[in-house]
Amino acid sequence: MWQYFDHLPVGKKENIASLGEGNTSLVPSSQIGPSLGLNHLYFKLETQNPTGSYKDRFASVAVSLMMQEGKQKILATSSGNTGAALAGYAARFGFALDLYVLEMTPEEKLLQSLAYGAAVHRVRGFGILNHVTDQVFQKLAARASCDETVLLVSAVRFCPREMQGVRTIAYEICDQLKNAPDHVFVPVGGGGLFLSCYYGFRDRFEAGVTKQIPHIHPVQPEGCATVVGPLSRGEAQAQPVGCASQISGLQVASVIDAQVVLEKTLETLGSGQMVSDEEIYHWQSRLVREEGIYCEPAGAAAIAGLAFALEKGQVGLRDTIV
Amino acid sequence: MWQYFDHLPVGKKENIASLGEGNTSLVPSSQIGPSLGLNHLYFKLETQNPTGSYKDRFASVAVSLMMQEGKQKILATSSGNTGAALAGYAARFGFALDLYVLEMTPEEKLLQSLAYGAAVHRVRGFGILNHVTDQVFQKLAARASCDETVLLVSAVRFCPREMQGVRTIAYEICDQLKNAPDHVFVPVGGGGLFLSCYYGFRDRFEAGVTKQIPHIHPVQPEGCATVVGPLSRGEAQAQPVGCASQISGLQVASVIDAQVVLEKTLETLGSGQMVSDEEIYHWQSRLVREEGIYCEPAGAAAIAGLAFALEKGQVGLRDTIV
Repeated sequence: MWQYFDHLPVGKKENIASLGEGNTSLVPSSQIGPSLGLNHLYFKLETQNPTGSYKDRFASVAVSLMMQEGKQKILATSSGNTGAALAGYAARFGFALDLYVLEMTPEEKLLQSLAYGAAVHRVRGFGILNHVTDQVFQKLAARASCDETVLLVSAVRFCPREMQGVRTIAYEICDQLKNAPDHVFVPVGGGGLFLSCYYGFRDRFEAGVTKQIPHIHPVQPEGCATVVGPLSRGEAQAQPVGCASQISGLQVASVIDAQVVLEKTLETLGSGQMVSDEEIYHWQSRLVREEGIYCEPAGAAAIAGLAFALEKGQVGLRDTIV
Repeated sequence: MWQYFDHLPVGKKENIASLGEGNTSLVPSSQIGPSLGLNHLYFKLETQNPTGSYKDRFASVAVSLMMQEGKQKILATSSGNTGAALAGYAARFGFALDLYVLEMTPEEKLLQSLAYGAAVHRVRGFGILNHVTDQVFQKLAARASCDETVLLVSAVRFCPREMQGVRTIAYEICDQLKNAPDHVFVPVGGGGLFLSCYYGFRDRFEAGVTKQIPHIHPVQPEGCATVVGPLSRGEAQAQPVGCASQISGLQVASVIDAQVVLEKTLETLGSGQMVSDEEIYHWQSRLVREEGIYCEPAGAAAIAGLAFALEKGQVGLRDTIV
């Protein structure tokens, strides 16, 4: 992804902390698109990143900034993938990592962070009870106020510079398609991926590289619909919820980047899509069985949302969709 | 990897069966190289392939050839990764797959093939007892003699055309380094990866793209040293063994591509390296903890072999090593 060095907030190339992130494949749909009548459906395979998720784009910029600014230690929160990403980059570049994970983080995701050598703390109630979640953030923010420690949370609201790394997903899609797509469907937990895609597509459009900003559609589980719940009721305010979804990565009950996500959805004339956990598992299975794409449930939320948008006539059969 | 279309045995681009394989990162060592005094040590991250291993390069060519030749059904044998790769591509392109796996195939690898929908048969004694292994191959070869079925085994001896896909690893390394490296260390089970790398580097050299063919070093566990056992004794014949190694992917007791591997090792002035299972696990742990590279043990065998070669003075500190 460092081919986009000029667009990333790192001053000198010698500070780049890379593990081979980005430059992931954009593959055309083999069977699902045709079965839905869609001619130009693509999947962006973020599992090809070195630790297995798009969070590596965030981790790479984050650790590069630490090198640039002489930081030594990372405090971080995660539901799993951010932790694995930061643990991998921390290991590679010799930084200590204290990782605080949600109570419901799956064992499989923790194993990876532990293998890299991170100190992992699973906190009861974190991510479930809002007062616990707030307390964790307050304590970490206090500890991170010393000069050599950074607090990393993969949200635009908390780490806007580090999250610029995630914009490279949009840059790559534009380069791979030789234009911006018409529609992009994005799974939304806190909303950082959505916003970074939005800013990335806007950057390309404003630079004159592409002719349009796509319609960007947030997709959330019914049980954690901080953005698409309000959107479906015609409301303009994102709302915290009691999380009832089991989809790891999308279990973000509080409003982090959600308000801006809601506004940018309306700005791009995107639609919000609400899907059940069962629908997400159904589409995950179809991705594996019909496309050969072995992704986690959160990734499959995007195609579950597209299926609904198609039913509602919100996308056209000839549109280019990612 | 299909940027190398002209070098692959597929006639028409419309027959390309791709899932975004190849074009994996070549990352410089961050900590291990410097700790060994090596200035130019690189790792090729084949885990970035869509199903998680270099076998996708084989599967992509194999399924492309099936499209080209009107085949319908795949019979295959695997210790795990070939099965996952073929299962993914079979799912994506609508082919049936009957997969016969070694008795000692790890559960984690089988789960992936099963998720893609392959019919998986674990055969008692297959891969352990030579007469069982021979019987399996004979029965599958008989079943594959009908027009619409192919038998796929990721070995140059059995599937030379399909294995040409794996040469793209060498092509990519040459393009990434802008020349051939001085040394390449390759884990060897049956030997298909080694041979494909050799042919790939030779292709580049003969085309005038690079100035040298690297020294290519096979690395095997002590408990399954069909090539490097004979090499260490100064013998010129590969030998079948009773497999006593626990390293999945390197447990190939019979001589498949091993004789040619031995000959090409000598031709490139490479050295054979024999390592214990414990040393492989040790280096796997160092890759995870010091490089952020989360690979399976078989992948780590390469760096375990390099460490020995360095002790013996078989590589120079300023050499470029992959």
